[in-house]
Amino acid sequence: MDIEQELKKRADFFNKHLEKFLEGGHPENLYNAARHLPLAGGKRLRPCLAIISCEAVKGDVTKVIPLAIALELIHNFTLVHDDIMDNSKLRRNMPTVHIKYGQPAAINAGDLLFTKAFESMHNITGDCSVFKNLEFGFIGFIREICEGQQLDINFEKRQIINEEEYLEMIRKKTAVFFQFAAEAGAILGEGTEEEVKALNEYGLNSGLGFQIWDDYLDFSSDENTLGKDIGNDIRNGKKTLIAVNCLNNATGDDKKLLDEIFGNMKATEKEVRQVYYLFEKLKSIDYAKNSALNYVIKAKKALDILPDSNAKQLLLELADYSIKREK
Amino acid sequence: MDIEQELKKRADFFNKHLEKFLEGGHPENLYNAARHLPLAGGKRLRPCLAIISCEAVKGDVTKVIPLAIALELIHNFTLVHDDIMDNSKLRRNMPTVHIKYGQPAAINAGDLLFTKAFESMHNITGDCSVFKNLEFGFIGFIREICEGQQLDINFEKRQIINEEEYLEMIRKKTAVFFQFAAEAGAILGEGTEEEVKALNEYGLNSGLGFQIWDDYLDFSSDENTLGKDIGNDIRNGKKTLIAVNCLNNATGDDKKLLDEIFGNMKATEKEVRQVYYLFEKLKSIDYAKNSALNYVIKAKKALDILPDSNAKQLLLELADYSIKREK
Repeated sequence: MDIEQELKKRADFFNKHLEKFLEGGHPENLYNAARHLPLAGGKRLRPCLAIISCEAVKGDVTKVIPLAIALELIHNFTLVHDDIMDNSKLRRNMPTVHIKYGQPAAINAGDLLFTKAFESMHNITGDCSVFKNLEFGFIGFIREICEGQQLDINFEKRQIINEEEYLEMIRKKTAVFFQFAAEAGAILGEGTEEEVKALNEYGLNSGLGFQIWDDYLDFSSDENTLGKDIGNDIRNGKKTLIAVNCLNNATGDDKKLLDEIFGNMKATEKEVRQVYYLFEKLKSIDYAKNSALNYVIKAKKALDILPDSNAKQLLLELADYSIKREK
Repeated sequence: MDIEQELKKRADFFNKHLEKFLEGGHPENLYNAARHLPLAGGKRLRPCLAIISCEAVKGDVTKVIPLAIALELIHNFTLVHDDIMDNSKLRRNMPTVHIKYGQPAAINAGDLLFTKAFESMHNITGDCSVFKNLEFGFIGFIREICEGQQLDINFEKRQIINEEEYLEMIRKKTAVFFQFAAEAGAILGEGTEEEVKALNEYGLNSGLGFQIWDDYLDFSSDENTLGKDIGNDIRNGKKTLIAVNCLNNATGDDKKLLDEIFGNMKATEKEVRQVYYLFEKLKSIDYAKNSALNYVIKAKKALDILPDSNAKQLLLELADYSIKREK
């Protein structure tokens, strides 16, 4: 199974609907600003996950399209606003929305994408109570994304956080997206209660694995040629699972070293390397890698109760794929 | 009837529910930032309008509370984001959210208020299809608010706009709020189709009148002591109905004067006064005043089909009140 081709097939199908949904609108500059990011491509992981989950419970994928669009728009709304918060200049090799259209239009375009996501949810057909419950879940997960974003901002300013806090942050900031996409795809595919629960667990755990692997990737490069990202992460005091694990386990001189260098923007190349060696010595890099692998195992295990199908196979490979990614 | 007392009675009732709805939440700094503005008081005009509309059709006002909360949260969400766009430092005599909590937390708090508004909508009880239709209207009006905000930003950069464009902008930026509040209050109060339509028209027209009167107020001060706001509005080229009317009707030397001075940040006191006299000469100030009065007459006329009641009387006085306001 060529997983990238399988994803692309579904992304192409999804893109046609998304483009149609985002057509027109007045004033044009607001709608152009809102379309800028969602129509710039991307893997469409979240919509694809909803679609494949629907397939895995033998559902009708056309019914899941309004939800898939809503998910992609919420994803893009968070990117537009996050880029303003972080003052990022580039995304997907293009100027970010606030750079291209100015900050006021970018805030407004993000708000419009938020609104349009709810508009798309209203295109869900079928029983009203199913819609209402699903939308309630949708609202809950967006609330968690706002909370996760704030936790991430707050953690930057704290010297130490524990693993539980870290996991809460990445669950809310990233994993709930995958969790809700997979669960909602199964609900709209009219899966059984057991299937819906299985896909919920699959989404949550693969989302956690995905995010921890993302943190790990920065640190997995050749130690002799420490990448720029490692230096940045250490100097910025970025709270990855590796750092969290090391900060919580270091004692004595190791702890002192971390206190001095981790989060110190002026740390030298040599000092950064010392912290990196400490991460290795305390096995924090291995710890994070294994943690990601364990979440992926848990994600795959959750699918046991699903009948065999192409879609199930794809979900299994997708979970592995997320921890095979290279930079 | 003491209108301020009548409004306060309803605002107090509403505030208890709002405070309860906004309790708690983690992380605390995000929720504090989100509560900052909505719990700082205010007249609660939009919630009150929904409540009084419900009363006017003899509905149960407790049923309208979730909608009233959603309206107030959307209002506050737009204020939080608008203050960032305009870089305003003060609101309701307090630092704005981005000044007090920083820009990232303010963007995020606005997004959370948006989310919480939808959460409140889900507390609406009763028939699912009524909820779904009402929420669809809610989404549509938020979309119009985003569009209106963008039109306002765009108009600042244009030398001339016509009256139709101006009316579209204030309808979307301000009047839809009153329109939806009044209509939705009547729907949840189980008013007849005719009553719902009447309250929709009342809301729309009183909202237009309210906004035009607001623009007019700046220009109604003693002409010998031209207020600071008049100077600012003229130097900034603010597109009020007065300016729009004058820009579209001036010819010859009058037109030339406007082209030179209106929107010229360096205009002298004397030049500002010349433009003000032109507004008077071309009767643009009277035109705006009469326009506001006519919308209020239309708003009141729409209520003819309602049975007499305290609530109806209050709505009639509320419409007049909106054009009796002094600065």
